[in-house]
Amino acid sequence: MSIDTTCVNAIRVLAADAIQKAKSGHPGLPLGSAAMAYELWGHHMKHNAKDPKWADRDRFVLSGGHGSMLLYSLLHLYGYGGLSLDDLKEFRQLGSKTPGHPEYGHTIGVEATTGPLGAGMAMAVGMAIAERHLAATFNKPGYEIVDHYTYALGGDCCLMEGISSEAFSLAGSLGLSKLIVLYDSNNITIEGSTDLAFTENVQGRMKAFGWQTLEVEDGNDLEAIGLAIEAAKADHEHPSFITVHTQIGYGCPAKQGKASAHGEPLGEENVKALKENLGWPEPDKSFIVPDEVYAHYKELAAQGESAEEKWQKLFADYSAKFPEDRAKWDTFHSDVDAKAIWDNESYWQVEDKPQATRSLSGQMLNRLKDMIPQLIGGSADLAPSNKTHMNDEADFSKNNYAGRNMHFGIRELAMAGIANGMSLHGGMRPYVATFFVFSDYTKPMVRLAALMKLPITYVFTHDSIGVGEDGPTHEPIEQLAMFRALPNFNTFRPADGLETAAGWYLAVTSKETPTGLILTRQNLPQLAGSDREGALKGAYVISEAKDAQNMDGILIASGSEVSLAIDTQAELAKSGLDVRVVSMPSMDLFRQQPAEYRESVLPNAVRARVAVEALAGFGWGDYVGLDGAVVCMPGFGASGKGPELFKHFGFTVERVTEVAKNVIARNKK
Amino acid sequence: MSIDTTCVNAIRVLAADAIQKAKSGHPGLPLGSAAMAYELWGHHMKHNAKDPKWADRDRFVLSGGHGSMLLYSLLHLYGYGGLSLDDLKEFRQLGSKTPGHPEYGHTIGVEATTGPLGAGMAMAVGMAIAERHLAATFNKPGYEIVDHYTYALGGDCCLMEGISSEAFSLAGSLGLSKLIVLYDSNNITIEGSTDLAFTENVQGRMKAFGWQTLEVEDGNDLEAIGLAIEAAKADHEHPSFITVHTQIGYGCPAKQGKASAHGEPLGEENVKALKENLGWPEPDKSFIVPDEVYAHYKELAAQGESAEEKWQKLFADYSAKFPEDRAKWDTFHSDVDAKAIWDNESYWQVEDKPQATRSLSGQMLNRLKDMIPQLIGGSADLAPSNKTHMNDEADFSKNNYAGRNMHFGIRELAMAGIANGMSLHGGMRPYVATFFVFSDYTKPMVRLAALMKLPITYVFTHDSIGVGEDGPTHEPIEQLAMFRALPNFNTFRPADGLETAAGWYLAVTSKETPTGLILTRQNLPQLAGSDREGALKGAYVISEAKDAQNMDGILIASGSEVSLAIDTQAELAKSGLDVRVVSMPSMDLFRQQPAEYRESVLPNAVRARVAVEALAGFGWGDYVGLDGAVVCMPGFGASGKGPELFKHFGFTVERVTEVAKNVIARNKK
Repeated sequence: MSIDTTCVNAIRVLAADAIQKAKSGHPGLPLGSAAMAYELWGHHMKHNAKDPKWADRDRFVLSGGHGSMLLYSLLHLYGYGGLSLDDLKEFRQLGSKTPGHPEYGHTIGVEATTGPLGAGMAMAVGMAIAERHLAATFNKPGYEIVDHYTYALGGDCCLMEGISSEAFSLAGSLGLSKLIVLYDSNNITIEGSTDLAFTENVQGRMKAFGWQTLEVEDGNDLEAIGLAIEAAKADHEHPSFITVHTQIGYGCPAKQGKASAHGEPLGEENVKALKENLGWPEPDKSFIVPDEVYAHYKELAAQGESAEEKWQKLFADYSAKFPEDRAKWDTFHSDVDAKAIWDNESYWQVEDKPQATRSLSGQMLNRLKDMIPQLIGGSADLAPSNKTHMNDEADFSKNNYAGRNMHFGIRELAMAGIANGMSLHGGMRPYVATFFVFSDYTKPMVRLAALMKLPITYVFTHDSIGVGEDGPTHEPIEQLAMFRALPNFNTFRPADGLETAAGWYLAVTSKETPTGLILTRQNLPQLAGSDREGALKGAYVISEAKDAQNMDGILIASGSEVSLAIDTQAELAKSGLDVRVVSMPSMDLFRQQPAEYRESVLPNAVRARVAVEALAGFGWGDYVGLDGAVVCMPGFGASGKGPELFKHFGFTVERVTEVAKNVIARNKK
Repeated sequence: MSIDTTCVNAIRVLAADAIQKAKSGHPGLPLGSAAMAYELWGHHMKHNAKDPKWADRDRFVLSGGHGSMLLYSLLHLYGYGGLSLDDLKEFRQLGSKTPGHPEYGHTIGVEATTGPLGAGMAMAVGMAIAERHLAATFNKPGYEIVDHYTYALGGDCCLMEGISSEAFSLAGSLGLSKLIVLYDSNNITIEGSTDLAFTENVQGRMKAFGWQTLEVEDGNDLEAIGLAIEAAKADHEHPSFITVHTQIGYGCPAKQGKASAHGEPLGEENVKALKENLGWPEPDKSFIVPDEVYAHYKELAAQGESAEEKWQKLFADYSAKFPEDRAKWDTFHSDVDAKAIWDNESYWQVEDKPQATRSLSGQMLNRLKDMIPQLIGGSADLAPSNKTHMNDEADFSKNNYAGRNMHFGIRELAMAGIANGMSLHGGMRPYVATFFVFSDYTKPMVRLAALMKLPITYVFTHDSIGVGEDGPTHEPIEQLAMFRALPNFNTFRPADGLETAAGWYLAVTSKETPTGLILTRQNLPQLAGSDREGALKGAYVISEAKDAQNMDGILIASGSEVSLAIDTQAELAKSGLDVRVVSMPSMDLFRQQPAEYRESVLPNAVRARVAVEALAGFGWGDYVGLDGAVVCMPGFGASGKGPELFKHFGFTVERVTEVAKNVIARNKK
């Protein structure tokens, strides 16, 4: 048996052993695609286990994240992050370095958290976009300091998900020729044969998307796999899609080719049979790796070290020859200078006239774009409505990868997944946009961003029934609650220009929390009490009661309803009722404040509290408690003029005043 | 000018006028695709304006819902539901019959609510599935009582969205030859040319999906459109996709072919120019429709009336000849007999041993399947895990449309959209399933179901960190809040077998509210105090305090945490603390109860309340107020054994006891 084959089998055996030990996991993919992964990592991919963050490494995304043991085996065999045999033995155990699905930031060498199917494909597209943008921005003739491939590996699962169609169609349109996808095609899914629901011609679809398509008949033919990867690299106009025909659970006589190989341990006997079948030493024992295997992987790893050495030399020369570009490079790869923005008075200027927060957001974006040259993004075909266009900047397109205005097409989910990939790649701060109601489409990928701690900015405009005539399909109701409940996500709904500026400041200076800016379609007044520091604490007193020590109650609102609350405060004053108004752009930020600050804004003793928000009331109980009330949407919206809808659904000074009076009276009893 | 052309132009003029009057709307699609819609409705589609609910009518879905004036113009011209010129003049006004996007149940003749892009395509696939299933179930030789087409019309927007790829791939795999899609191809999107982000070969993609592809070069060539539709009908093996090349905003000299024609009124001058260009009478006036136009539409409508007369005769003969089938037909087309299920003792039997609620759900489903023969559904490739297989029932496949077990493939969003279409079609009660965390993918279509009042059942299993080893990508956290905040949706998380039975009862007897059953992966004990009537009220006392009049506090929980709350109650008793335990499977149902009932379960005076739920705590403030506490997940989950995760994250009797003691002490002060 060749050393290559033995090294392939080492991946299989480690995967089978670890899954068996954990009594949980998915052996089907690692066994089936061990050969293609080995060939790719060993003979084509540029990577250095000793420097997993090397900027110009090739990226590898295991889109079928359930096959995590494929990745962990490789990381162990290459020596990434000291991932030991003991770590593999702890597969899927609490606190281990080898969780059930690969987790970015948790295990060194994992480029992206995967598991939600199809996600890895979109993230790979995002990485390939990042590579092209940085190459166009930084490379000089003879100094191709950004020049790497992005590889993704996934199965039928990833191909059936709509996100991959969205992402692949865009990748084809953009001609991302340094993107190479390996399709582990085994005709098996959990419910059985793909004939049940997936008889399409996948290669035909990929060709239609503008990809080069290649095919490997035998998933264990290392030479054929290698030739296909070389052919993929040789195409400088199209991304490449390599269908590799495999057998799920290959090597395990009782399981290979069957759905049962997918998602459960093979069983003690079958693991032994696998080892015997593969001619593995000591088939009765677990986690046996011959020395020659480690030795060979060490040789392979050494190639990566030399590759990086060569690049470091090139980069040093580049830095010497182009010091300004090197400085810009450092800016791109560093956190945003928060103080510079904070101290930049012109950034915080707001014209005192009614404006929609989406328009104000567009202004802030255009003020930030020169301060943050690594800011790049766009919309899912709604830029004119989302106000996300950066003026005087070019479009990112097949013909100009240096452009910063991206056009994602009407593909919200892939857009969000691509943003994840761009952020994961490094060297850029992506923002993306759509109508708030269509944040529903983005949700699975926004969740991944929060989980991976990627500080992406989501510009979600048209944030309530203020949408007006487009009606209930376009009017968000429950979306605020959806994002407020999401961990590690800052939902920020500003009330005016200054709060909008604070929102963008929060978003671009965030280090590991994504931010959703929730913005109006309609104009809002600029508020006298608006305060950036207060806004960044999540909530603050925007209009104080006359006698704060003895106030009758508190009105709490966010975004477009803050001015309504302030108007209600004035109306209540006519009846001798003295209330405080709290602007709460972000429950997430407020929750993180010290107890004293929270008490200072919402004193525990004041129970007559009314929240006003033209969306679902769910969740406001956390702030108004059992003695307060919420003026909110009772259900879905309707089609009509925005101001008429506000009136129709009771967002008027009269109604909020009435509710507040009742609450105050009830609490005085 | 031919009467046909005049009738086409009537659609254009009415659309332009209504949008101009509303000063809001999307003229681009109605102007561009008026001809194909006219040809389809007038010469190919089987429909009867006098009986918009005729069971065997062809279905038409305007997937590009922003082009609503196309549909409203047709409905008006055909006389559907008495939609008058005055109704068109009220386009996009609050309370009118002509909202911004077509709304099912609001405007007679609208088959589906559309607007979220791509949704209509998935819903059309669902309708075509329903047609084939009912045909296979009911038709007899010579009695093809179910025999109709489903048409969908949409543009680039719908084609870019991943949901349409998912749905079209499945439609191809299922060989749904009575599904015909008209693709309004105009190369324009909001941000400009489709070259920006959408250069794929759409026909090639559709061919790869297993569709017949047809092309019409000139979108105003009625004959060519007609021939293409006939060719589509002639293919009995594949669904058909007709690319019709059009000009967005056709007929308006200053706007046609431009992105600006898409989403804003043409302007007074341009509307006049449109009419002059089309040779329309009295171009200075609005809403002018020549009598000959109405007369011709009346003739066309008469064809539909005859078609239905013929069918009614056939159906009467069928009913006479096959009385049992006719009785079954009536069952399929009626509400489920709630009393029969309620009174069926064997349905409610639960074996007293620890079981996962997903398994119990599978048992209930299999008990219901014979009582409800119109129950049909499946999973997005997770049936063995979701326990959604109906035993002894066939697979729904290309070769057997009578099968009731559906295989959606790994396409959660399309699955949910298809379920909408099946429900909209009538004659079936669909259920669909996936892991709860992947409900994120389904969300946009679940929202549409809630908005359209479709009583679909969602089986969402693996509902917390109880998922265990698969880790945070597979562990839902914020999803409960997301669905609880969604209007007209019953989120139901049962604690044991009896509550699970109640959940299915709720789901299948619901008339206009979809239900989400939120189910565990892990085993749960059967609870002594479990009660179906209480569960159906959303919350009830499952374990009473010893002295309810003087109880020290209340523990509230749902699903897997109810038994933990009951164990905590016993632990607290050891310290002399007497608490009530409330099981709250559904906040949605509880909110709808009379105030007295709610007070009886959660007395206002008792403020020492602790909620326990192994997901995000967001929203529990509505029940525990400012004086209580929530034991919930502080962030994302982790990979490890389920029981270890529960312990790690503090879902233990010890911790809940400690929290409860603190809350009780605080409230006694």
